[in-house]
Amino acid sequence: MKTPFPPLELPTRLLHGPGPSPVAPSVLEALAKPCIGHMDPEFMRAMNEIREMLQAVFETENEMTLACSGTGSAGAEMLADNLVEPGDKCVVCVNGVFGGRFAEKCRRAGGEVQTLNATWGEAFDQDALVDLVGELKPKVMMIVHAETSTGVHQPIDKLGEAVHQNGGLLLVDCVTSLCGVPVKIDEWQIDGAYSGTQKCLSCPPGLAPVTLSERAMHKVNNRKHPVNSWYLDLTLVGNYWSGSRAYHHTAPVNMNYGLHEALRLILEEGLMKRFERHRNAHELLKVQLEERGIEYASDPLNSLPQLNLVKVPERLKDEAAARRALLEEHHIEIGGGLGELAGKCWRIGLMGHGAREENVGKIVEALDAVAPV
Amino acid sequence: MKTPFPPLELPTRLLHGPGPSPVAPSVLEALAKPCIGHMDPEFMRAMNEIREMLQAVFETENEMTLACSGTGSAGAEMLADNLVEPGDKCVVCVNGVFGGRFAEKCRRAGGEVQTLNATWGEAFDQDALVDLVGELKPKVMMIVHAETSTGVHQPIDKLGEAVHQNGGLLLVDCVTSLCGVPVKIDEWQIDGAYSGTQKCLSCPPGLAPVTLSERAMHKVNNRKHPVNSWYLDLTLVGNYWSGSRAYHHTAPVNMNYGLHEALRLILEEGLMKRFERHRNAHELLKVQLEERGIEYASDPLNSLPQLNLVKVPERLKDEAAARRALLEEHHIEIGGGLGELAGKCWRIGLMGHGAREENVGKIVEALDAVAPV
Repeated sequence: MKTPFPPLELPTRLLHGPGPSPVAPSVLEALAKPCIGHMDPEFMRAMNEIREMLQAVFETENEMTLACSGTGSAGAEMLADNLVEPGDKCVVCVNGVFGGRFAEKCRRAGGEVQTLNATWGEAFDQDALVDLVGELKPKVMMIVHAETSTGVHQPIDKLGEAVHQNGGLLLVDCVTSLCGVPVKIDEWQIDGAYSGTQKCLSCPPGLAPVTLSERAMHKVNNRKHPVNSWYLDLTLVGNYWSGSRAYHHTAPVNMNYGLHEALRLILEEGLMKRFERHRNAHELLKVQLEERGIEYASDPLNSLPQLNLVKVPERLKDEAAARRALLEEHHIEIGGGLGELAGKCWRIGLMGHGAREENVGKIVEALDAVAPV
Repeated sequence: MKTPFPPLELPTRLLHGPGPSPVAPSVLEALAKPCIGHMDPEFMRAMNEIREMLQAVFETENEMTLACSGTGSAGAEMLADNLVEPGDKCVVCVNGVFGGRFAEKCRRAGGEVQTLNATWGEAFDQDALVDLVGELKPKVMMIVHAETSTGVHQPIDKLGEAVHQNGGLLLVDCVTSLCGVPVKIDEWQIDGAYSGTQKCLSCPPGLAPVTLSERAMHKVNNRKHPVNSWYLDLTLVGNYWSGSRAYHHTAPVNMNYGLHEALRLILEEGLMKRFERHRNAHELLKVQLEERGIEYASDPLNSLPQLNLVKVPERLKDEAAARRALLEEHHIEIGGGLGELAGKCWRIGLMGHGAREENVGKIVEALDAVAPV
């Protein structure tokens, strides 16, 4: 390299793909606050407040609630690595990319994995799952609450009880659900859940909110085999976030400032109002798309308001070119299909700060330009 | 929680502990640039520039050079997980906290670990290590270039050749060395190295620069056992950073903006000038401390300029109280001793943006107030 690059000049985008989502100005400002030491009492206070706010949005009293120092995938791995012992029977529900990924993480943690499969874009029948739990008696059962790859909103309120009655733990992927639709960790008896900051929390990516029940921590604290990962080992990370405050790693200080502000905005708005705002934006988008002959591809009874899976209109010859034109000419990002839905579907996110009627208007206007009826 | 917390109000600190280090204003500003999609062509361009600048500071042409989406400890784990196969003989040099941690990561990756031990605060004799390599023939040899817990600057230029002649790979912890003292990955034949953003790169914590030689990647690409970690699996992460650009995880977009700017500032200054600035600040501090009867505790022939390990002056009854007073009354952070040096030593960092004569003046002035001669 001959000369250093110039400073980054970045375009402003309206983020309506599967994440990251639009970030509120005060969250960006928080990221730029002066970095202080990660063992500074003032940063520990910030960590305490983050934990308390994460407990509020997860609707839990779990002491072991923290922001894992990695992205959502690291949060998933934290749960798999800590809660799966070699040989454990793991039942993983797969109806999209992220269930499949969790199954792989369980395998790498040494689990004996059985997947239950449903068509991509369809939810599992919860009552059928409850029956299967009685039959299979998994040590670890995992399901995705909001499949980012398909927009499915999975009912999960009855699973925890069934899994517990059969001696197991229930783990849930809440990456795209948290703060967009209700996530009731304690009421639904969920033992472990993870999320990402860049979806309905509307903070840039980089941290993974994680929460574990006492039942889950009992398993972690009584493992026979050490956790595969030292970085994600909750007996170490947990002490860093609370209790002895023993030095483990160096937390991403400024990312935590951003998460603090994002959580603050969420609680200031109120979860109920936030969920309603997501529903309203979704309803408006749905009407507008259907008027233009753009059909939904997800299960109509179990669709997420914050992630809209729609069929690429038949009139479009080249869907990738249309998305590129949206991005380059209109500065709007929407997502393509993942996995088996690639080329067939679009994923339009209405997440967090971006779940607003004016944003829907901009999306539809731009779609009219690149995919005219 | 009844009401949301107010926005964070953070003190400004002069960071002269073991990291994080002072962050330049333009790096903080970069963190607050608008978040864009992690698959956006403009972000991919930023990733390419980051890789190219990391190659420049690592002095390497390694294609597999990237910013791991976690802190320095995740970077260490990325190397251990990818380069240690179950049963591999690993020789890990331990003369401080971080060698010991790497040994533990190798064990968790399935390695048969033998540690070589030296007194904390002393460097290993490199010629003796070369002889031991011939005897032990490790598959993986690991050493810390700059022990953050002791301030030792380990000579490592001859090890790579010896390790290669005996059929192994050399891994090096460059967390505190990179951009503070020379790190010559290609010239020294290092196969894998990791660093952290919050030391001499002067970016907030949250990313881990990592580089792997072709020889190392050959091992990764021909593993018999899958890598323990899906999140850190370089066959997946590598494709995300270059090549096919296949979606793996969501990179911490804004943290990468910060790293881009931090690297840019480093290359604008020039590595040689930066090293000289670190040496000058260190020399000044050393003279000033010795005038005050504060002695160095590290090996005088192998001391890092950027991390000064000094003995707590005997005149001080309570070293923790003195550090607290430095922090609370003078807003200066210095580090306590880690592990067996706790209570006995201080660690005074002069890293990156903070390695300046004016900062030395402020440190010494504050020390005069809390630990008067």
